[in-house]
Amino acid sequence: MEIKVKQEKFAKALSNVSRVAAGSRTTLPILNNVLIRVDDGKVSLTTTNLDMAVVNYLPTAESKNGVVTVPARLIAEFVSNLPRKEVVHVVATDTKVTIRAAGYSSTINGAAAEDFPELPEMSEEKMVTFRMGADAFKAGVSQVMVAASSDTTRPALTGVYFNTFEGVLYLAATDGYRLAERRFVEKVESEVTAIVPAGSLQEVMRMLSDDIDEVEICFDETQVKFKLGEVEITSKLIDGSFPDYRQLIPKESEINVELKRDELVRITKLAALFAKEVGGSIVCETNTTDGVFTTASVANELGENKSEIKTTANADGKVTLNSRFLLDALNAVGGDVIEMGFANRLDPVVIKGKKNNEYIHIVMPLKG
Amino acid sequence: MEIKVKQEKFAKALSNVSRVAAGSRTTLPILNNVLIRVDDGKVSLTTTNLDMAVVNYLPTAESKNGVVTVPARLIAEFVSNLPRKEVVHVVATDTKVTIRAAGYSSTINGAAAEDFPELPEMSEEKMVTFRMGADAFKAGVSQVMVAASSDTTRPALTGVYFNTFEGVLYLAATDGYRLAERRFVEKVESEVTAIVPAGSLQEVMRMLSDDIDEVEICFDETQVKFKLGEVEITSKLIDGSFPDYRQLIPKESEINVELKRDELVRITKLAALFAKEVGGSIVCETNTTDGVFTTASVANELGENKSEIKTTANADGKVTLNSRFLLDALNAVGGDVIEMGFANRLDPVVIKGKKNNEYIHIVMPLKG
Repeated sequence: MEIKVKQEKFAKALSNVSRVAAGSRTTLPILNNVLIRVDDGKVSLTTTNLDMAVVNYLPTAESKNGVVTVPARLIAEFVSNLPRKEVVHVVATDTKVTIRAAGYSSTINGAAAEDFPELPEMSEEKMVTFRMGADAFKAGVSQVMVAASSDTTRPALTGVYFNTFEGVLYLAATDGYRLAERRFVEKVESEVTAIVPAGSLQEVMRMLSDDIDEVEICFDETQVKFKLGEVEITSKLIDGSFPDYRQLIPKESEINVELKRDELVRITKLAALFAKEVGGSIVCETNTTDGVFTTASVANELGENKSEIKTTANADGKVTLNSRFLLDALNAVGGDVIEMGFANRLDPVVIKGKKNNEYIHIVMPLKG
Repeated sequence: MEIKVKQEKFAKALSNVSRVAAGSRTTLPILNNVLIRVDDGKVSLTTTNLDMAVVNYLPTAESKNGVVTVPARLIAEFVSNLPRKEVVHVVATDTKVTIRAAGYSSTINGAAAEDFPELPEMSEEKMVTFRMGADAFKAGVSQVMVAASSDTTRPALTGVYFNTFEGVLYLAATDGYRLAERRFVEKVESEVTAIVPAGSLQEVMRMLSDDIDEVEICFDETQVKFKLGEVEITSKLIDGSFPDYRQLIPKESEINVELKRDELVRITKLAALFAKEVGGSIVCETNTTDGVFTTASVANELGENKSEIKTTANADGKVTLNSRFLLDALNAVGGDVIEMGFANRLDPVVIKGKKNNEYIHIVMPLKG
């Protein structure tokens, strides 16, 4: 195995793939390695943690066929420290891999490729494929992912639910306390219902560099593959059923108020400072007499706090929320003005951008 | 106690002082508080962790005399989240402190000022004072501090040694494995030998904002006070004797080599990657026959590594160094070209900037 490749290209590819390998605290040491394969002049770097695998293809000037594995983080750090613009020359002799560039030379002890596991191939016939703009994908996934759970005792909630409904693709996530849903406006031909692990999506997001315009997503029954230019990320799907979340979204709310997002963020943070002893719970209130929306911390040892924004709500009401969930929601919704809808006490609180029906975020109130 | 003060000024002052208070994991809860005092229109904010104290004076439009203490981090975070440009109105009624700005209002439960400890006054008659440019102070302290020890069993080594010698002020620090010394060229009138805790200096550095031009440093026998504009930081000195370090600095070295700093940093990092299993130790070598300086990792399980820089040394030699210490030294020395001097094996290695006699860094070799 032999390749000559530009430092920048090689360093970037190694950085992409080494994240997946290096992240795995594994009892199977070969999972720390990257598989470097040259096959008919086509060079690929592959890593896997058994739940997901990344392949980064690499354009090279010169290469000789062969395959070897080497510790991914070590080679990634080594190559990233070499000078830019240099051509890096990699030669494998059995499992010893020598890397040279200008006056720099190192030999890394690798391992045989036979022991390197790969994810099973995807089943072509059962595959459905979606394509979307990279920006829309990035925005949508990050808006939804915040609501995913980190509690592994309910695996289905630790993923993002890709689902089609009435010819449109939706992403949704919920941890049982809040729910986020993003709709992609373009009509799609295929249908899918699949739960993609949030951790895998995080890696996809990290590898989605600015020069990528389109993301291709292929599902079969057990796996998903994301194609981002020269990078392919394959992940197992979560085997479980996602809650029938659409019925949880209120059709309309009794009390509706429009608020400037930055002001609401500020008064939520101010109230949250005083709410540390009570798990971050704060009271939000509309007051039509004074024409204000207020946040307040519950009185406790630290002191108390009340902040207000001038606004007009359609009715008086009061709801107790986890301030962190509210801040997460406001961050995910984005934009200048948000619409908040709630009913008294225990009905879900709906948060949306003004005149934006693509994204909806729901937070369950606390018993105030 | 009552003050009206611009949000920006107040937030910055609170941020300065709250660091010292909030850092103290203390059994004396009042140490988490900031003392707000108004005395004849002069407003001061004070915190202390018993080892050091910070006072930040504050210009105000309006004030009424009085004194109170409130949790420092809480009020700092609260005020920092208020809108800029607003005037913040603070009123204390007994130990309750109400803070208002525009539509924001909060009441923080404070504590009586009587219980608030203060550092003892400095003795005026035994005081010596130095003044230096803020930039020189900043650069000098950060260059030296890196060599201070974090091992509290040898307290004298955890500080920076301020000492005058032949009419010049020096700063020095050593952890027993390396030594850094910075000389300030301007002649000084007074004499001092004092060990300032590195932790206190770190706080001084953090509070040294860009608008400060000069630092005034006053020592008495047990304390030091740094005056940075409206901020005064007082710290206990470390009671102990600093090693007689001047005799440790080699007058001259047998082997001398000049190297481009960025190239040396690169080959040190490359060798260090392979030296993780051997505690980061790498071998540096001059080879006059080939006209190169090389770094290499000791052969081990990961593989091996050798990198070279073209240069001319006056003799052949070899020394084993801790790569982290070498990188720290190169970072502290700065500049484009460094001079490295060593003798074979176990004599201290001297690292300096080319044509720069203000700063010297010494690293003890490892037994190769």
